[in-house]
Amino acid sequence: MTEVNFADRLLEAIERKRSHVVVGLDPDIDLLPPALRAEHLPEGAKAAETAPEAPEVVAALYRAFLTKVIAAVAGDAVAVKPQIAYFETLGAAGWALYEDLVRLAQEAGLLVIGDVKRGDIGSTAEAYAKAHLDRIGVDALTVNPYLGTDGVEPFVARARGAGKGVFVLVKTSNPSSAEIQDLRFPDGETVYERVAGLVTGWGEGTEGARGYRSVGAVVGGTYPGQGAELRRRMPGVPLLVPGYGAQGAKAEDLSAMFDAAGTGAVVNSARAILYAYRKREGHWLDAVVAETREMKTALWSAAGNV
Amino acid sequence: MTEVNFADRLLEAIERKRSHVVVGLDPDIDLLPPALRAEHLPEGAKAAETAPEAPEVVAALYRAFLTKVIAAVAGDAVAVKPQIAYFETLGAAGWALYEDLVRLAQEAGLLVIGDVKRGDIGSTAEAYAKAHLDRIGVDALTVNPYLGTDGVEPFVARARGAGKGVFVLVKTSNPSSAEIQDLRFPDGETVYERVAGLVTGWGEGTEGARGYRSVGAVVGGTYPGQGAELRRRMPGVPLLVPGYGAQGAKAEDLSAMFDAAGTGAVVNSARAILYAYRKREGHWLDAVVAETREMKTALWSAAGNV
Repeated sequence: MTEVNFADRLLEAIERKRSHVVVGLDPDIDLLPPALRAEHLPEGAKAAETAPEAPEVVAALYRAFLTKVIAAVAGDAVAVKPQIAYFETLGAAGWALYEDLVRLAQEAGLLVIGDVKRGDIGSTAEAYAKAHLDRIGVDALTVNPYLGTDGVEPFVARARGAGKGVFVLVKTSNPSSAEIQDLRFPDGETVYERVAGLVTGWGEGTEGARGYRSVGAVVGGTYPGQGAELRRRMPGVPLLVPGYGAQGAKAEDLSAMFDAAGTGAVVNSARAILYAYRKREGHWLDAVVAETREMKTALWSAAGNV
Repeated sequence: MTEVNFADRLLEAIERKRSHVVVGLDPDIDLLPPALRAEHLPEGAKAAETAPEAPEVVAALYRAFLTKVIAAVAGDAVAVKPQIAYFETLGAAGWALYEDLVRLAQEAGLLVIGDVKRGDIGSTAEAYAKAHLDRIGVDALTVNPYLGTDGVEPFVARARGAGKGVFVLVKTSNPSSAEIQDLRFPDGETVYERVAGLVTGWGEGTEGARGYRSVGAVVGGTYPGQGAELRRRMPGVPLLVPGYGAQGAKAEDLSAMFDAAGTGAVVNSARAILYAYRKREGHWLDAVVAETREMKTALWSAAGNV
């Protein structure tokens, strides 16, 4: 287990790769490139017109697909963010694949942010931390704040002591995120601003050499105004920004998510990269690389770097 | 897949078994009964003084333990609530065990409430719903409300159309639950009360023959005053009450969690039942049964039934 501070590893990767790109690994059987499907489906299934349903068959397809994606984006992305829900749909076969892909991505020089959004009472949060940070060994994971400090502390303890990272949901990218998160208290603060304050506190003691903390915040790129305000409110807190691409956020909207040095945030895109073949000519894997590089260049410029 | 309304199934089970007891399946290697351990550990491991670490060995122990527990409590409990975090610590072996135990409990006539506390953007929530409600086939699961309606809708859709149940976190049982949940808006309502209002709305269209909805609320038994107030505020919303036993809630504290007919809520206890051998003489499995029956009787009385 590496014990180098997570925030330092994140910022170092951004600089070295000149990239803020996180590639979301959201495998979807209905969107796999037809060429990949034809190449990897077993003979019998290839002929069938319906989607293959056996978890082992689907897991084998996902493995072939994501192994190629990881190798193709390793030079241009700072991290991958596997969304564990898609692996859970395949049961134990999906779980084993998730674990294998974490290792594969790390061996390819990528940080791995497990998008698991766990959160529970203290003893259960400790079990989740053991499962995901200790055993599977992702570099960081996403966490839900609704239960407060004791649902987060087991993850934060590993940010302080074991070089791990945590990204706490603050303002999420989905359409209905306002229902609870944007409600306003008498002092004018919203729920998500109050959560931002908690997140800042939780990160104390996790600072790296560059002043950034290893307890970050998830801030949806689909709400750039609120994201800019959160960037100002949370100096030293790294941001994980979902919502780029398929959900609609564009690079120029996100410039205020970065700090004055053009760092401190990473941006996730999943479907727009994984299934880029739907909008680009040529081999599906070339489309993945082209989409990743275009996003990388656009974000590098939006962050004020040259 | 059964399509009988979940709330009807829950209320029917409460009446038929004269019980509000949910047994939490939270396996912990350090707390397993020594006799069970001695009986089921492989020869080599039995001699070792340290805890067995290989996931397959631990999974085999958990399987032996929980299979016996499920059979022993099936007549006195209405449901079991496996806490998936403890299974995730064992990777794919734990996942396979989780799935097997769900089936085993259902075959024993128990409802199964998967304690997974998932919650994500719509497309991801859909994947979680497919994984847990469709594929694994639990009768109900716990869900986190922080993302609002579109993070909950895929689960609720299956409560409307497929006889499934959902329990949304409203006021959790842990010490720091007040940090976010108890914050108060200008109109005097708290965050958890606002969530309670959302949950009531989400349940529309999921009503069973008895007027109860299949979208319920998680309300910690460790906060009986707030629980009583939520019971009044959410008529027709079934409550899942954790915190009994090891976390400190007692039956007499919970009488106001039930409705006038003595139903509408179920109460979970995990460690106090599973590891009852620590406080009771005799075989560990007799201790499990005795603890379950004592809880059953105490709750039946607290609910106003005779």
